[in-house]
Amino acid sequence: MERTKPAVQGNSHLPFGDQQDAPYYGWDILSVKQFSLEDLTYIYAVAHELREIVARIGGFDLLKGKILANLFYEPSTRTSSSFTAAMERLGGSVIPINEVTYSSVSKGESLPDTVRTLECYADVIVLRHPKVGAAQEAADFARKPVINAGDGVGEHPTQALLDLFTIFEELGGVEGKTVTLLGDLKNGRTVHSLARLVSLYDVKINYVAPEILKMPPEIMQEIGARGVAQTEFEELDAVISETDVLYVTRVQKERFEDEAEYEQVRGQYVVDPALMKAAKEKMIVMHPLPRVGEISMELDSDPRAAYFRQMEYGLYTRMALLALVLGKA
Amino acid sequence: MERTKPAVQGNSHLPFGDQQDAPYYGWDILSVKQFSLEDLTYIYAVAHELREIVARIGGFDLLKGKILANLFYEPSTRTSSSFTAAMERLGGSVIPINEVTYSSVSKGESLPDTVRTLECYADVIVLRHPKVGAAQEAADFARKPVINAGDGVGEHPTQALLDLFTIFEELGGVEGKTVTLLGDLKNGRTVHSLARLVSLYDVKINYVAPEILKMPPEIMQEIGARGVAQTEFEELDAVISETDVLYVTRVQKERFEDEAEYEQVRGQYVVDPALMKAAKEKMIVMHPLPRVGEISMELDSDPRAAYFRQMEYGLYTRMALLALVLGKA
Amino acid sequence: MERTKPAVQGNSHLPFGDQQDAPYYGWDILSVKQFSLEDLTYIYAVAHELREIVARIGGFDLLKGKILANLFYEPSTRTSSSFTAAMERLGGSVIPINEVTYSSVSKGESLPDTVRTLECYADVIVLRHPKVGAAQEAADFARKPVINAGDGVGEHPTQALLDLFTIFEELGGVEGKTVTLLGDLKNGRTVHSLARLVSLYDVKINYVAPEILKMPPEIMQEIGARGVAQTEFEELDAVISETDVLYVTRVQKERFEDEAEYEQVRGQYVVDPALMKAAKEKMIVMHPLPRVGEISMELDSDPRAAYFRQMEYGLYTRMALLALVLGKA
Repeated sequence: MERTKPAVQGNSHLPFGDQQDAPYYGWDILSVKQFSLEDLTYIYAVAHELREIVARIGGFDLLKGKILANLFYEPSTRTSSSFTAAMERLGGSVIPINEVTYSSVSKGESLPDTVRTLECYADVIVLRHPKVGAAQEAADFARKPVINAGDGVGEHPTQALLDLFTIFEELGGVEGKTVTLLGDLKNGRTVHSLARLVSLYDVKINYVAPEILKMPPEIMQEIGARGVAQTEFEELDAVISETDVLYVTRVQKERFEDEAEYEQVRGQYVVDPALMKAAKEKMIVMHPLPRVGEISMELDSDPRAAYFRQMEYGLYTRMALLALVLGKA
Repeated sequence: MERTKPAVQGNSHLPFGDQQDAPYYGWDILSVKQFSLEDLTYIYAVAHELREIVARIGGFDLLKGKILANLFYEPSTRTSSSFTAAMERLGGSVIPINEVTYSSVSKGESLPDTVRTLECYADVIVLRHPKVGAAQEAADFARKPVINAGDGVGEHPTQALLDLFTIFEELGGVEGKTVTLLGDLKNGRTVHSLARLVSLYDVKINYVAPEILKMPPEIMQEIGARGVAQTEFEELDAVISETDVLYVTRVQKERFEDEAEYEQVRGQYVVDPALMKAAKEKMIVMHPLPRVGEISMELDSDPRAAYFRQMEYGLYTRMALLALVLGKA
Repeated sequence: MERTKPAVQGNSHLPFGDQQDAPYYGWDILSVKQFSLEDLTYIYAVAHELREIVARIGGFDLLKGKILANLFYEPSTRTSSSFTAAMERLGGSVIPINEVTYSSVSKGESLPDTVRTLECYADVIVLRHPKVGAAQEAADFARKPVINAGDGVGEHPTQALLDLFTIFEELGGVEGKTVTLLGDLKNGRTVHSLARLVSLYDVKINYVAPEILKMPPEIMQEIGARGVAQTEFEELDAVISETDVLYVTRVQKERFEDEAEYEQVRGQYVVDPALMKAAKEKMIVMHPLPRVGEISMELDSDPRAAYFRQMEYGLYTRMALLALVLGKA
């Protein structure tokens, strides 16, 4: 397991009275691959505690005086808002940077220079970038912690972490559960990261996808090497009844050459109340959102529909990560 | 009078130690139609107190730990900045969302889904949207309070509330006053809402507009049914001397087919020092801004020019509304 | 020396318990020309103290309850982020206004009206505008302090102030130093302002530029009138060994009619480890950033490379200016 190096080790610019010996202090969050079982247990304990604090008093001043540079080279209202709220609920402040492309960068500034400028102002950098490897490049140059909020088709580790936290909070844990991933399993970084993460535990994974959008064999091999049972399906009906976690993703029209084929797949994979009759009473339906039809709105009032609660777990997960890398949890 | 339902009644997600029995706690602010005389009196008492606090100490921590999602599908620097400042002067934080169209929404996400995501992060949502009825739709789905900051040609209730608050603060009340509305009375949601709101009181209303931009008869009927005297004019000279509140709006070129007609109307309705010689010594000139020539800059130093103070009253009105719907006033 | 008038003298809207007799309270920051030696000494004493506070505890609540309107008619991530962080590290809040052109302004609102609206919400206005003189125009109409964050080819006083502060902090002072300005000295407002500012002290200035990008004679005359020694060069080699401060700027391709000439100039003026062998051991290399090749990345690890630290000094300089004009330092 490659663990990302502490980003600010021995850095004389960053004391601010932090607990420098706190676990995860100064960490970069770049990939789900950097997390061990112990890490996850620790992070989720913090996230759970933060959830309770938010429910009780809304927020508190743990990160007062700290500043997050929220650096988005691509727009993403959801992720950007989630990190903003996470920082603000902990009493910290945010520098919102959404229009990067119209600015310095369009004058030809490199990512390392932009990051080294922003860390002069901020204490932690959240980066969304269209290029695979951008977060690693930023972390290589930054003295302060970098959190990857999605780098192209690469990784989006905080999404995977919040997905798993959702399962923990909703079902009490992931051990022994059957996780069914549905939709475009070929192109979705979300499902790749989640599959990797749950395979640290004793789970069973089902993949339900049309032939052309199957889970890539190299990821299945990686997961199989950990002894996790994996089965592939083309129909959801076959597995809905045994599923504890149904993770739905969007199937994009652009992936299909034949529109008729797209329409057929799309129709097949809609999760609606009729389908849910075959599902367990205690299970959850998840989705990274936005959805555009693959889960019917009629399902929203079903207690098993966990996708909006999932957004809320994202808040607590990101609060935990910010607190940890800043040495405050 | 249809009063908007409490948005968060019995909602277990929202306690945070709020006074759940506080009046207006959890209310949506969607339309001026939802306010009774008693509501207005209460809101303006709070707004007046907040005005005094701001004058004395700038702000305080009434909404500390609370987060506002400022969701603007259309740009509006003025309204967006006003809500941001209102939240910040009360010690709260803001998630600014200005570029919605480039983001999730362009991926096809529905307004209800966007709103249900944002309320996972925030405590109250301010919504500006180009579509009539958008605020109501958002409120139907949201558990947390929604404040309408303008939905197309529909409503912009906080504008009307701040307009009336301006009259209260500047003239000591609206009872017995003569309110003259000037300009494009056909298309302006601002004057429609204000006319409705002042007609709750014993006032006299003058409408001054060119033939093609007259106040719509259905609104005049609605107001007439409350026993309010209304008179229509084409010339401002006829009524300036009896006017207590002159509310000026912009006449847009695009409304006219004949440019010569536009130029004539435009010239006729300019409020300048010459015209103001005929006005009372104690009266006010208001404008929702931005202006583009309908009030001459020479008038700015006239104490009766209340349009910039009007912006400031907007701050206190919005502070009051945020405090009220969050159960803190 | 023309000193900018106090912006809020006798203003009854602004008390908030401020120390109204504090030096610089209510000042506009419009031009480097408004600063005397005494002013600079005072400002840098405050900036230095703030630097130590940030190093020790990250920030504090000096400007709690105060609001900055960050009004950018042109995008500038660097400057905008720097002011945002400065305000937040002092416990204040920010109204970010980046998309002005798409908003009220595109409806034809004048700068004075926009500024008079924003000061209803905020306590201080930072303005970036493409038009020379825009900051002065804003200040003429505003009751609250205006800070010029760049008005076209006009001034960018806070950049010059932070540049000089960098020299003070890195070299212990500027008296007796040799300052070499390199690159496009004709069009760069940055080098014009810095040259003016250092000429208040006993310094020697070298200008290194290609023939067509030389320092304008009127600025050299202004500086010469203060008795400062100035020498012009076309080659950097001639002066690198005696230089205490090497201030590098970008040479833009667009300035040249002949591309071959551009390529030659560009190659000649690259600051790299080879060149730095001839430089003093104790000297600094500065750059306003962004750079695009005129300083090689290999130099970044050289302790004399001060350009990223320069960004950090910008934070402290802007914190000091905000605190001063708000009467809190």
